[in-house]
Amino acid sequence: MTDSWATFGADLHLDLTAGRGLRAGLTEALREAARSGRLAPGTRLPSSRSLAADLGVARNTVAEAYAELVAEGWLTARQGSGTRVAERARPRRPGAPAPVRRPVRRGPAYSLVPGSPDLGAFPRAAWLSAARRALTDAPNDAFGYAEEARGRIELREALAGYLTRARGVYADPGRIVLCAGFLHGLTLLAGVLRARKVREVAVEGYGLHFHRDLLTRAGLRTRPLGVDGEGARTGELTAGPGAVLLTPAHQFPTGAALAPARRAAVVDWARSTGGLVLEDDYDGEFRYDQQAVGALQGLDPERVVYLGTASKSLAPGLRIGWMVVPPGMVDEVLAVKGATDWTSSALEQLTLAAFITSGAYDRHVRGMRLRYRRRRDDLVAAVGDRVAVSGIAAGLHAVLDLPGGTERSVVQSAAWQDLAVHGLSAFRHPQAELAPRDALVVGYGTPSDSAWSPTLAALAAALP
Amino acid sequence: MTDSWATFGADLHLDLTAGRGLRAGLTEALREAARSGRLAPGTRLPSSRSLAADLGVARNTVAEAYAELVAEGWLTARQGSGTRVAERARPRRPGAPAPVRRPVRRGPAYSLVPGSPDLGAFPRAAWLSAARRALTDAPNDAFGYAEEARGRIELREALAGYLTRARGVYADPGRIVLCAGFLHGLTLLAGVLRARKVREVAVEGYGLHFHRDLLTRAGLRTRPLGVDGEGARTGELTAGPGAVLLTPAHQFPTGAALAPARRAAVVDWARSTGGLVLEDDYDGEFRYDQQAVGALQGLDPERVVYLGTASKSLAPGLRIGWMVVPPGMVDEVLAVKGATDWTSSALEQLTLAAFITSGAYDRHVRGMRLRYRRRRDDLVAAVGDRVAVSGIAAGLHAVLDLPGGTERSVVQSAAWQDLAVHGLSAFRHPQAELAPRDALVVGYGTPSDSAWSPTLAALAAALP
Repeated sequence: MTDSWATFGADLHLDLTAGRGLRAGLTEALREAARSGRLAPGTRLPSSRSLAADLGVARNTVAEAYAELVAEGWLTARQGSGTRVAERARPRRPGAPAPVRRPVRRGPAYSLVPGSPDLGAFPRAAWLSAARRALTDAPNDAFGYAEEARGRIELREALAGYLTRARGVYADPGRIVLCAGFLHGLTLLAGVLRARKVREVAVEGYGLHFHRDLLTRAGLRTRPLGVDGEGARTGELTAGPGAVLLTPAHQFPTGAALAPARRAAVVDWARSTGGLVLEDDYDGEFRYDQQAVGALQGLDPERVVYLGTASKSLAPGLRIGWMVVPPGMVDEVLAVKGATDWTSSALEQLTLAAFITSGAYDRHVRGMRLRYRRRRDDLVAAVGDRVAVSGIAAGLHAVLDLPGGTERSVVQSAAWQDLAVHGLSAFRHPQAELAPRDALVVGYGTPSDSAWSPTLAALAAALP
Repeated sequence: MTDSWATFGADLHLDLTAGRGLRAGLTEALREAARSGRLAPGTRLPSSRSLAADLGVARNTVAEAYAELVAEGWLTARQGSGTRVAERARPRRPGAPAPVRRPVRRGPAYSLVPGSPDLGAFPRAAWLSAARRALTDAPNDAFGYAEEARGRIELREALAGYLTRARGVYADPGRIVLCAGFLHGLTLLAGVLRARKVREVAVEGYGLHFHRDLLTRAGLRTRPLGVDGEGARTGELTAGPGAVLLTPAHQFPTGAALAPARRAAVVDWARSTGGLVLEDDYDGEFRYDQQAVGALQGLDPERVVYLGTASKSLAPGLRIGWMVVPPGMVDEVLAVKGATDWTSSALEQLTLAAFITSGAYDRHVRGMRLRYRRRRDDLVAAVGDRVAVSGIAAGLHAVLDLPGGTERSVVQSAAWQDLAVHGLSAFRHPQAELAPRDALVVGYGTPSDSAWSPTLAALAAALP
């Protein structure tokens, strides 16, 4: 019997060289042996004295390891029967171990799927400088649980200045509520609408299905508006929907700016029905040729909720967005947000505030505007003589009209060129009454600089 | 008439010195004038030619500003009737402007409310170094929309190593799901339980009411277990609840470690009923005297979900937490998370990964352990001869037992000392059957170093 004790230490595959301390190493080795079944349930362990002698360690080290594992339930210690491996220490084997990484589905080599900025252009050095300033200046309470559910005042103040100046938003820090990106903001607003007993939200007939899905999951029906060259047909709004979700500056994905008369119509609708306008200003910073189109929110800050995000201007990975809401609605939003108060990190909020107030945000947007504009010009030069390119006055994407009935085959042909690109029909609301239109939605912001030329070549090769 | 044009520019309070460009300044001034009502709806504006002459700017500058405001709906331009302020450009005045900051309710000068680490001890310099490394090493895709709903692999790998080593958790990156702190994790798990048709969750009779409230809001009843010096009375578990939420390492707030037999009992309960154990390991890193108590999860990783957080070890403001879930449950968690996928920023995840792998996390925890242990010793030295102090083997808080019937008056007396502190009864589940106990829950991690001595003095003065 004592012979088997002599090999016990070796059997444990004890690695006491890892510098983590004898006791920790011994505890872990014993725990692992019990867990794996190498030490079967019921097995009696050597006394702490003999194992200590065997291993050449202090008896207390072994006794403490035993005591820890008894406390954890791996071992039992009973007067008279010594220390044993507990009966319940053998977990049912997992059906299959979880894979460390799921098999990577290799996508196409090139992508013109819209919705992402050029991630290779993230301003790493400038962001680090802002983080340094934020970490230096942050008051201690920034590291604590947020006491202000709207988000850090420093960022709300910086945004109020920026949005007023750059987007014509009627903004003050008190009516800004930070969120973890547009989807989080829309989720909060859906909660407000539900609390107000709203049942239906009008949306643009072309749009992102996951925005519609989010509303549907929140218990709100979506009713599509027509979309044409002047944006959403807001004249179609009736008393039914309690809110309308719009992309006025640059309709997604068709690229039209909402025409002045339609801007007026939607504000009139909101006033006469008490409805709420949700303005998704996802890429308002990026406008190239025409004069800037200010936010719709400025027309009636009491009826329009403005939603903006750093996801297009900087990076989606930051998970920072903002809403400018009517003052009377702030508490309603916070009532929903409070129940789910996991907004972005305070440090990240302070870093973005420093990034804006230092002027780095404006510089970055200006630089990216030039870069994207060049890309847009490249795109038009490459394919403009073969297809009509529209929606190009702004943003990070364009629409390429195709001969009737060819959209599906062109998307397939692009796949053969190793290029991911979406047809316009992928953005169509299932109930929308829209004129048939075959087209590609080309996100020219997505590729990295190095991939841009081959991506464009693949697109050109895929076109009819 | 023309005379009034002459003063028009002055009336606009145009400030063209701000360096933002003539056109932008003019546009904003006009917009503001229309918004505020200084330019009444219907007012006819000067021709672009005459305003340009008046202001001494190029005619195009004015024409472009007008065009922009027409596009935004502030102005209307009709052939023959010139440019006018639009009828709808006068928003209904807001009832009251939103306050920039809400009136700050000045709380007591000192606080021993538990739940917060010492925010003044956040390792700013080491965190910045980790951020620099993260920003340097991050692949471009880190800045994009997250493709892996579990969170960045770099952080999950770092956590798997740390949790295995430091907490005895059976962890691999594949079963780790990152979240924005404990409450977000619990929200996701509540969603899983609801999807599994679970109706009831057992909780500890003493605990945090907002944990219970979160479960209630998610549609789950809570059933309290008794709590005594050996932790939650897990032997009371019946077949009713589909899950139990526990703080095994350091019961919150009484401070007991769950006794070995009770650890065994809860695992047995989970196996025989198919129930799920939710292990809230909020301050498992901070144990002072006894041997470390490893995570319950190691006893049966198929039935225990481990929840950890950086909120106590680093800072709540980071909004980073993690769950280790049975492999078969990962997809269920992600199904809920996917619908609400706004986890913490990828950069912050990468920064924490770098912080852990560089050894800074271990160093920080070791340093804080010493610091908190000194505080605990101070506390016992200051009041230990007057009241019984318990729950002090670990964590950031202790329980001070009071003479029967005095809790409320002591809390009030503390308030007179300008000290915020909670009585134990504040943590009591309304339906819990618990022996009467008058006590204070003292969060000694909360004060900053400079506030520590006066806080302790205020506490001593408040005690009977």
